[in-house]
Amino acid sequence: MKEKTMLTDLYQLTMNAAYHDNGKADETATFDLFIRKLPQDWGYFIANGIEDAIDYITNIEFSNEDIKFLEQQEFFKPAFIDYQKTFKFEGDVYAVREGTAVFGNQPILRVTAKRNQAQFVETALLNMINYQTMIASKANRVVNAAKDAKVVDYGLRRAQEESAAMKGARAAYIGGAIGTSNVKAGKEYGIKILGTHAHSFVMSFENEIDAFRAYVKTFPNKATLLIDTYDTVEGAKNAAIVAKELEKQGDRLSAVRLDSGDLCDLSKKVRKILDERGLHYVNIVASNDLNEYKIDDMTKNGAKIDGYGVGTEMITAKPVAAIPGVYKLVEDNGGAKIKLSPDKKTYPGKKQVYRVTGADGKFSHDVLGLEYEGIAGTPLLEKVVSQGKRVTKRRTLEEIRQHALESVEKLPDHLKQVRVTEQYEMKISDGLNELIERLTQQYGNENNGGEQK
Amino acid sequence: MKEKTMLTDLYQLTMNAAYHDNGKADETATFDLFIRKLPQDWGYFIANGIEDAIDYITNIEFSNEDIKFLEQQEFFKPAFIDYQKTFKFEGDVYAVREGTAVFGNQPILRVTAKRNQAQFVETALLNMINYQTMIASKANRVVNAAKDAKVVDYGLRRAQEESAAMKGARAAYIGGAIGTSNVKAGKEYGIKILGTHAHSFVMSFENEIDAFRAYVKTFPNKATLLIDTYDTVEGAKNAAIVAKELEKQGDRLSAVRLDSGDLCDLSKKVRKILDERGLHYVNIVASNDLNEYKIDDMTKNGAKIDGYGVGTEMITAKPVAAIPGVYKLVEDNGGAKIKLSPDKKTYPGKKQVYRVTGADGKFSHDVLGLEYEGIAGTPLLEKVVSQGKRVTKRRTLEEIRQHALESVEKLPDHLKQVRVTEQYEMKISDGLNELIERLTQQYGNENNGGEQK
Repeated sequence: MKEKTMLTDLYQLTMNAAYHDNGKADETATFDLFIRKLPQDWGYFIANGIEDAIDYITNIEFSNEDIKFLEQQEFFKPAFIDYQKTFKFEGDVYAVREGTAVFGNQPILRVTAKRNQAQFVETALLNMINYQTMIASKANRVVNAAKDAKVVDYGLRRAQEESAAMKGARAAYIGGAIGTSNVKAGKEYGIKILGTHAHSFVMSFENEIDAFRAYVKTFPNKATLLIDTYDTVEGAKNAAIVAKELEKQGDRLSAVRLDSGDLCDLSKKVRKILDERGLHYVNIVASNDLNEYKIDDMTKNGAKIDGYGVGTEMITAKPVAAIPGVYKLVEDNGGAKIKLSPDKKTYPGKKQVYRVTGADGKFSHDVLGLEYEGIAGTPLLEKVVSQGKRVTKRRTLEEIRQHALESVEKLPDHLKQVRVTEQYEMKISDGLNELIERLTQQYGNENNGGEQK
Repeated sequence: MKEKTMLTDLYQLTMNAAYHDNGKADETATFDLFIRKLPQDWGYFIANGIEDAIDYITNIEFSNEDIKFLEQQEFFKPAFIDYQKTFKFEGDVYAVREGTAVFGNQPILRVTAKRNQAQFVETALLNMINYQTMIASKANRVVNAAKDAKVVDYGLRRAQEESAAMKGARAAYIGGAIGTSNVKAGKEYGIKILGTHAHSFVMSFENEIDAFRAYVKTFPNKATLLIDTYDTVEGAKNAAIVAKELEKQGDRLSAVRLDSGDLCDLSKKVRKILDERGLHYVNIVASNDLNEYKIDDMTKNGAKIDGYGVGTEMITAKPVAAIPGVYKLVEDNGGAKIKLSPDKKTYPGKKQVYRVTGADGKFSHDVLGLEYEGIAGTPLLEKVVSQGKRVTKRRTLEEIRQHALESVEKLPDHLKQVRVTEQYEMKISDGLNELIERLTQQYGNENNGGEQK
C-alpha cells in the first residue's frame, strides 16, 4: 500500500504545508468518514474497503522519488519537505467491521491524529471506501433480486479500469455474488472463477452443433453452452442433442446460457425443451445488460433461470456511478466542530453508532450518539489502528462475506426491496442533540449570522 | 503490462482450450474493437487507451505463478497448460491514433492473429479502451461547455478505485483539462497538479480571515482561497482584505474558490467585490458536483468563472458510467463473418475508416469500407503492431492531447453542443454493402432462417 502514498489531492499537501508553517501541524484533530445519503431506491450500504483502508493508513511512506517530485513542484519550502520525509501515520482509527450494513450520515471510519496526518489520509480513504462500498451494496441488491438464482460478476470488460475490476469483483463477492469471470481476481482473492464461451466461438465453426460438440469435447462435465448465436430455441434443441450424447459417455452438460431477447420468456421455453428430454439437471443461466430491476421482474414473472451473469451495471453501479462519501472535521483542540449548511450538515464530536436489535432478532434502529454516552445497543465502531499500528486481526474474505450476509439478513425486510421507500431509522442521542444545539448557537453568533458549512 | 496477462475473462481461456483441443487454435482470425453507439447527447468519442492497448498486447506473458494457478483450476488439460506457458501475441494490430475523434460502429482497433491469440486479448483491451475513451470524451464535453474557462480534474476521491483515478486524470487531460488535483497522476504522467484548500482548513482556525492569512503566509503568490465556509460574499470580502495585504508585500493572491450555492450568481457578486477593490487579477474558480450541463448553463448566463474543478461526474462519466465497446469476430479462415441481430449488428470483413474533409477544412463525413477498396479520404486505422512487435512510435502525452484537440477542432460545430441531436454521417462503401448483402443471404439460408447474432 506504500504505492498509494502519492494517491492524494494536492490540497492535502498544501494544507499540511500551511499547518506546518503556522504551528498547527501537531494539534490533534478528528475526522469522520461517512456517506451523506443512500442513492434513490437503496435501503442500506455494505461498508467495504475497510481492510484496504487499514493497510493504507498503516503503510504511508514517501519514497525518495516522491520527495524529489515534491521538491520539483515549487509549492513547498525545504522545511516542509524535510518534515514529509519522515511522515507517517501515528494516530488512532475506529471503523465498522468490513461487511457491516450501514446507512447515510453514519461514521464508517473515524480518524484521530495529529492534524496533518488526519487530514492527509482523506483522499485515498475516500477513493477506496466509496467505490468498494458502492459495489458491495449494489451487488447485494442484485443478489436479493435474484432470490434463489446465483449471481456471477461478468463486469471486467466494462469496469472503470483494472483496479475497479479487481476490487469490484471482490466487493461483489462480499455482497453475495458466488464468483467472477475475472481470472486475476480469482487468482488474487481466491474467488471462484466461472465462464462459458462467446458468440465468436460458435461463429468459428461451420454450424452451431459442431461448436457445441467441440466445446464439450474439452469440457465434458463442466460446459455451459451459449445458445442464442442464431436462434435461442433452436440452440436449446442443439444443446439438448449434445447433452444426450454426453449422457451416453457418462457425462453431464452443466448449463445453457441465454444472452439476448426476452430472457424470462425464453427461459421457460428452454426449460421445457430440456425437461422434455429428461435434462432436468441442465441449468439455465442468463446475461445481457442485467441489473437488479430487470432481475426482480424476471424473478416475479417466474423465470426459469438458475444463474445470472451481471456485468456493466453491477461493476460500475450504473446509473449511480458514485456515492457521496465524505471526510469531515468533527473535533480538534478547539472542541467539537459542526457544519450547518442545509445539504451538507455534519454531526459534531467523537461519535459511536449504537445498533439496537428488536424482539424479532432483526435490527430495529440505530442511535448516533457521543462516544462516551454508553447508549444501549451494539457499538459498530471498533478500534482498528492504535498509534499507527493495526490492532485488529486481518479477516479473511470468507469471514467478511459471511459478516456482510449476516448483517443484511438481520435488516428489516422492507429495506431489501428493489425500490425502497421507507428508510431505516437512525435516532440522534440526547447528548449529541445537546452538542448540536450548543454549537449551532455558538457558530450562529460568532460568524456574522452566517452558517459554518 | 505483463501483470495484465491474467486480467481476462475465464471464457477466453476455456474457448482457447477448446480451440486447442479441436485443432483450431492456429487458424487466423480478425476481430474489430468498436463502440456500438454514442451515449445520449454525445456527438463523438475521443479514442483513448490505444497506447496502453499496444503495450498490453506486446507484453502478454504467463508467469510460473499464473500457470500454477491455471493448473489448480481443473479446467485445463496438461497439453493446453503447456501450450499457454509459451503463449504470446504474434499477430498484427491496426488502430486509430490515440486521441482521434471516432463514432459509433467504427473500428478503433483491429486484431488479426492466430485464433487463440486474437480471442484472448479481448477482455483487457475492452477494459482499458472502454474507460479511457469514455473519460477523454466526457472531459472534452466539459471543456467545450466551459469555453474560455479552464477545467481541472478533481475526481480522485470519487473515481472508481485507483487505476480509474490515474487513467481518468490522464484521459481528462487528453480531453482538454489543464491539470489534476491527483498528485500521483502528476508524478506518473507529468500532468500539472493544482489545489486549493478544504473547508476543514478554515474550520481549523479561530475565524476565516486567520485561516486565509495562514494559508497565504505559506503560499503568498499561489494561493487559491476557498471562500464559502461561512458565507461566500463575506468570504470574498475577507479574501480581498488578505489580497490587499499581500499587495503591500509585493505578492498577489491567485484566486478564490466557490463551492456551494448558486455559483453563477455568486461569481458575479464576488467579481464585483474583487474588482471594486482593484483585484481584477484575482481569478474565480468554482466546484461542487459540476458537469457539462451545469457549466454550459453558467457559460450562457455570463458566469464570471475562470476555472472549474470537476470531480465525480467527469471521472466516472456519470450517469453514462460505461460505453458499449465490443470486440467481434469479423473474418476468419472461413471468410468474412457477420452478426445480424437488430441491436447487435456487426460489419463483416477487414475494414478501414476513411475520413473525408470538406471545403471548409472540417470533417464532412466518414466512409466505412473494406480495407483494399482505396476510397478517397484519410484512412484512420494504421498498423501499430506487426507480428507481435510494436511498429509505431510511442507518442508523448502532449502529442496525444494535441492530436485530440485538433481532431475535435475539425469536427462540425453541431457535434460540440452539450445536447447533440444530429449525428455525424458515416457512409457504408459499395464494397462493404455488397459483402453484407451476400453474407446476409448466405446466413439466412444456412441457419434455418435464424439470424447470426
